[in-house]
Amino acid sequence: MIKIGILGYGNLGKGVEKAILKNPDMELVAVFTRRTPESLNIMTKTAKVLSVDVIEEYQNKIDVLILCGGSATDLPVQTPKFVKLFNVVDSFDTHAKIPEHFENVDKAAVLSKKVGIISVGWDPGLFSLNRLYANAILPDGKDYTFWGKGVSQGHSDAIRRIEGVKDAKQYTIPVDEALKAVRDGKNPDLSTREKHVRECYVVVQEGADKARIEQEIKTMPNYFADYDTTVHFISEDELKKNHSAIPHGGFVLRSGKTSDENSHIIEYALKLDSNPEFTSSVLVSYARAAYKLCKEGVFGCKTVFDVAPKYLISKTNDEIRRTML
Amino acid sequence: MIKIGILGYGNLGKGVEKAILKNPDMELVAVFTRRTPESLNIMTKTAKVLSVDVIEEYQNKIDVLILCGGSATDLPVQTPKFVKLFNVVDSFDTHAKIPEHFENVDKAAVLSKKVGIISVGWDPGLFSLNRLYANAILPDGKDYTFWGKGVSQGHSDAIRRIEGVKDAKQYTIPVDEALKAVRDGKNPDLSTREKHVRECYVVVQEGADKARIEQEIKTMPNYFADYDTTVHFISEDELKKNHSAIPHGGFVLRSGKTSDENSHIIEYALKLDSNPEFTSSVLVSYARAAYKLCKEGVFGCKTVFDVAPKYLISKTNDEIRRTML
Repeated sequence: MIKIGILGYGNLGKGVEKAILKNPDMELVAVFTRRTPESLNIMTKTAKVLSVDVIEEYQNKIDVLILCGGSATDLPVQTPKFVKLFNVVDSFDTHAKIPEHFENVDKAAVLSKKVGIISVGWDPGLFSLNRLYANAILPDGKDYTFWGKGVSQGHSDAIRRIEGVKDAKQYTIPVDEALKAVRDGKNPDLSTREKHVRECYVVVQEGADKARIEQEIKTMPNYFADYDTTVHFISEDELKKNHSAIPHGGFVLRSGKTSDENSHIIEYALKLDSNPEFTSSVLVSYARAAYKLCKEGVFGCKTVFDVAPKYLISKTNDEIRRTML
Repeated sequence: MIKIGILGYGNLGKGVEKAILKNPDMELVAVFTRRTPESLNIMTKTAKVLSVDVIEEYQNKIDVLILCGGSATDLPVQTPKFVKLFNVVDSFDTHAKIPEHFENVDKAAVLSKKVGIISVGWDPGLFSLNRLYANAILPDGKDYTFWGKGVSQGHSDAIRRIEGVKDAKQYTIPVDEALKAVRDGKNPDLSTREKHVRECYVVVQEGADKARIEQEIKTMPNYFADYDTTVHFISEDELKKNHSAIPHGGFVLRSGKTSDENSHIIEYALKLDSNPEFTSSVLVSYARAAYKLCKEGVFGCKTVFDVAPKYLISKTNDEIRRTML
């Protein structure tokens, strides 16, 4: 059994707990939290809920610690810190800061001789893998990534900060015609506006000026100004009833030529009912990889690019060659 | 520069030559053939065409030998034989015999301390990778593979063996409704007939009995009897004009649950203008991996499951983390 610890019990931490239940070779030992442990109600009766302050005592009781904090302020501190004690996996997703995060985690992991796998999930993560495989195979080509249909937490938050807004949910939606042009091998040059539209469901406070709110959303720089945005004002009940799920997904495509005559399209697509549950499932399979790599004497910071696929699955090499190749 | 040798100059060998031209870190040193070398006309002016009988002299002049023979009789002999002298990559695609082939190649590669990567291409190959990744991430789920639209060489050959048939081309086509049901998360149980249809374009000899030929095709066991098959009789000119390309492709899907509430679909799709050129491009990227792995002191038989993605691409680890993660 691979013994897992979870640090942080938000949507991602809960997803990791559910994912462990789907993997019979894994066991949840403890959830560590910065909140009062008694305030958490976890599903796994055999696991403990503990304060992060006692985490050091678990160094020899946990094979891999899965870090379920946020990329903005938690992970830049937590991953380098806890890789000194544990093999760790995180879902650090601030693309621009990955090289810096990598260096910090690597420095600590080399000293502790532990494995730290960073930026695990679907983007970065599975989408990155597909970009790499497709670029390696078709060096003469063009990449496309589309996101959605799915909820963007950052954009929903941005709407909620507008005066008079009570709650909001924003969906990022890929434009069908753009996706079709790529699939048809037309290699289009697509502007931001041509690739995605944004759809907003907004609950306002009583008496709020809807026209002003709609205007503020549609002209918000970085978030909405470069997109065609639709705003729907709905009731709080409607928001709860129809928009409380956290679906997401998207498409990674590469179109490339192998000769003057012949082009090819490689497409990878995800359709996810729950973004955090799926991300958690990816984290858990890379936790298995961290465990196996550590057993082989490997250490340091790793990304999905460094991990051979066989390490992710709980089957023997003979078995995967026989049944999956 | 990675120095490449090609053994066998059919469609696959020609594709490898084209793929090398798209990869500036690679150089074709020589094409080895069982035919008279003078009968071959290769594109790369700087490369030699040589009899396979002198291949041993090139042991120190070639980093990786790409084996472009067939799976039925060539590769079972060639891969174990040539891995004694070279790092090799092959596209062995007889799924049921992969374990045996692996053992034979591994035995020889361990002795010679060379790398032999087998069963490289898209199925086995990229499709296998996607089956593995998707199974690791969604252990509670169901796999689907669809092939096409594309030319099946084996089925085309089977039609050509019927009396009165001059030439033929067979397309394997996935059934849209079946694919849609999978994408919609319905987890259908699909029979052979429900997954693919077969479309045949047949040129007959003068005076041949078309009704008899059509009947023979449609009832042919293993090849056609279990499918809905359409037969079109066309002229030799039409066959040449409209059916001389070798397109292929297909879909690997996995649908799985992470909790009682939430399901997810992972889809990988290929649309290929030329099956051999694309397969060759995959071979060439794994030749790069064989070269890098050998430099690191790795040896033995490997499959796509054993190779970390970073080895496939001609960029540094820093660069791929910065630009593709």
